[in-house]
Amino acid sequence: MTSSVSLPEGTPAHRVVIVGCGFGGLFAARALKRAPVEVTVIDRTNHHLFQPLLYQLSTGILSEGEIAPPIRDVLRRQRNTRVLLGDVVGIDAQRRSLSVRTVDSNWKIGYDSLIVATGAAQSYFGHDEFAAAAPGVKTLDDALEIRSRIFGAFELAELETDPVQRERLMTFVVTGAGPTGVEMAGQIAELSHRAMRRNFRSIDPRRTRVVLLDGGHELLASFPESLQRRTLATLERLGVEVHLGVMVTGVDADGVATNSEDPALQRIPAAVKVWAAGVQASPLGRTVADATGATVDRAGRIPVGKDCAVPGHPEIFVVGDLMSLDDLPGLAEVAMQSGMHAARTIVRRLRGKPAEQFKYRDLGTMATISRFRAVATIGPFRLSGFIAWLAWLLVHLSFLTGFKNRIATVASWTVAFIGRGRPERAVTAPQARLDILEPSPGAAKQTTGGS
Amino acid sequence: MTSSVSLPEGTPAHRVVIVGCGFGGLFAARALKRAPVEVTVIDRTNHHLFQPLLYQLSTGILSEGEIAPPIRDVLRRQRNTRVLLGDVVGIDAQRRSLSVRTVDSNWKIGYDSLIVATGAAQSYFGHDEFAAAAPGVKTLDDALEIRSRIFGAFELAELETDPVQRERLMTFVVTGAGPTGVEMAGQIAELSHRAMRRNFRSIDPRRTRVVLLDGGHELLASFPESLQRRTLATLERLGVEVHLGVMVTGVDADGVATNSEDPALQRIPAAVKVWAAGVQASPLGRTVADATGATVDRAGRIPVGKDCAVPGHPEIFVVGDLMSLDDLPGLAEVAMQSGMHAARTIVRRLRGKPAEQFKYRDLGTMATISRFRAVATIGPFRLSGFIAWLAWLLVHLSFLTGFKNRIATVASWTVAFIGRGRPERAVTAPQARLDILEPSPGAAKQTTGGS
Repeated sequence: MTSSVSLPEGTPAHRVVIVGCGFGGLFAARALKRAPVEVTVIDRTNHHLFQPLLYQLSTGILSEGEIAPPIRDVLRRQRNTRVLLGDVVGIDAQRRSLSVRTVDSNWKIGYDSLIVATGAAQSYFGHDEFAAAAPGVKTLDDALEIRSRIFGAFELAELETDPVQRERLMTFVVTGAGPTGVEMAGQIAELSHRAMRRNFRSIDPRRTRVVLLDGGHELLASFPESLQRRTLATLERLGVEVHLGVMVTGVDADGVATNSEDPALQRIPAAVKVWAAGVQASPLGRTVADATGATVDRAGRIPVGKDCAVPGHPEIFVVGDLMSLDDLPGLAEVAMQSGMHAARTIVRRLRGKPAEQFKYRDLGTMATISRFRAVATIGPFRLSGFIAWLAWLLVHLSFLTGFKNRIATVASWTVAFIGRGRPERAVTAPQARLDILEPSPGAAKQTTGGS
Repeated sequence: MTSSVSLPEGTPAHRVVIVGCGFGGLFAARALKRAPVEVTVIDRTNHHLFQPLLYQLSTGILSEGEIAPPIRDVLRRQRNTRVLLGDVVGIDAQRRSLSVRTVDSNWKIGYDSLIVATGAAQSYFGHDEFAAAAPGVKTLDDALEIRSRIFGAFELAELETDPVQRERLMTFVVTGAGPTGVEMAGQIAELSHRAMRRNFRSIDPRRTRVVLLDGGHELLASFPESLQRRTLATLERLGVEVHLGVMVTGVDADGVATNSEDPALQRIPAAVKVWAAGVQASPLGRTVADATGATVDRAGRIPVGKDCAVPGHPEIFVVGDLMSLDDLPGLAEVAMQSGMHAARTIVRRLRGKPAEQFKYRDLGTMATISRFRAVATIGPFRLSGFIAWLAWLLVHLSFLTGFKNRIATVASWTVAFIGRGRPERAVTAPQARLDILEPSPGAAKQTTGGS
């Protein structure tokens, strides 16, 4: 199977297996492009995913292909690298071997160095029963599900004759006021207040209610306070209702329940709920811990040494959101840098050099709030408004994978931001999916009416 | 609900209901833009669909949004028109009223004129059990399902160590050699023989086998013989195996069975099967017949008069693929022209003028075989090769709905035809879908192996 991989003659190939091809895995693989190693990338999907733009898929701006290029196409010119579809289900750290499952078949693969980069999934803080009513924003399927619900809710609202139910269908509750929640709430507001103008005859989409909730007392908690204030002002100008210090205590088909003292917030009837409140490490963290004797922290992450390796197992690296090191946050930038660091450490060792310590270079963080409005910290600078939005645009474009995706994305952004188009709105098999938008059987139910 | 519709003062609004918003329904609605009527478009999905380009969605060239614009966005400037999501389940021709179902609710809507344009679905000629293993090419969901199977089969082939199973995973059988089947087979061949170069390490996608079968003895039966011969030559140069006069007698997870005398064709092991062999009219045809006393022909279509109306019911029009008139074929062009004719007839009657007879103007037909290669008849002209392909390009662009879609589609075509990109390849939730590519439990099964 490896006959086509070119390696320096006479060298027994050092086998690097990378599990997961998000930012951490992809940047590790790329950093090994010219290394005298044989790289295998294993992912459970066929695509890399630009997670920070998932909210644009959910709100009809970008297509799947624009944010999720095929891994094997991205890495096609890297002749020492192969890409395999599968779910890693077991690790034998003694024999240096992984058990992998693909559809109904199990297979094994050996490694000399292992980079685990399977990231994090949404966390419901022990309330997994919220998930059916409030999808997270971590995978392509999550984002497509949310897209189907958002546009489906407007379709049902246009038909609804009961004003109470219509209001419920036009209320969108986003839980979690980090960058994902802020961006999602901002885009739902722009979409409904601006982009769908003239689309309806019975409802006025400008009357859509968008509610952003967070149990903490800060919006964009990792940003400086001055930018938090600007973000709040921009969101409010967009018509987003922001309620901080409000914990969500229940989510079901009918709406959201909170611990707020304001009676109007204790129960918010809403057809569409989005959960952007927290993350938990991928379950593969537990597998790594069981195989190596490593610990997992409360979030399910693996504490690693300064070389990004598991203590006692210098050949097993954990990078990105699954890694616990120096309290680093779960950012794309941390994943990229730690993935590259693991790759470079492998190469240094092969060359007989000692491992270096991983030092995260904070290049800044940013969040868009609406078109033309963002907040960003870049080194000592704090930007907001149009300048921050331009910076956001350039940084995101430069990190988008593949030339075609950049061109296509610029075209889509031009249409969405300068124009008012939301071209990617096709709801597939709506019959099967829109049930979830109906009130629960116990709730008062009105018959919709067309005329 | 109709307060925003502007109508000439004092005129009671003449209510036109259009059921289905494919080419027939959309062109009927557009033709009523300036008419003194109140138009309601009812569709079971939120999108119009450019069906002739579904094969490009299946092969990773175009995104959903590029071929499926939201109906309400397309018609947003038409102030006398509203768009409602629903499935028409009953017609009361006496009371001039429709029963509609949306998710779990039923509602009714009255009409003065009715245009039924629900088109046709795939026909399996009495073998509906073929459908699970061989999806048709009629809806967005069909095309996404086929896309997921095509790219999923290559993923599994890359992992497969058994050469027999690998060959099965790399064999694609398209049944039906009309334009859809020819275009699909040609694109699968281009995709595998050209576009996925360097993507794999264990398999050589250029060794993919693409088989095109048809029970009839002609390829593109509606085209002149000279163009049929050229199509055959082009397909064969692309590496497509074409077998005419071969009836498919069975389709299951393992492959396709035929009545061929050639033993090698009696059983073709293939993971991915596409059914493009026949159409049957939408089930709403039967409902129209039951309500009006009209007959349905063998294909389930409603024979209409020269005004496109149901005999005895001048207020009920049937257009497009659901209409049976003068042996007209099921083409987008026929649907558009008959939809516009029905709309104009309604307006003429409102003005007290007599209905005119529908005359189909044959503007020609075309099919692409590969990039830069097509066949076309335009009036007395027969084109093939690059010139025909250019004509195809211009005609399809001019009929694509919406400016943004034209720009985006030109960009995607440039990448796909001049470059070699297939950006739209993201397979979502592959775990749930790739089971179907596995051999049936009875068949000999090998464990896949990664190393």
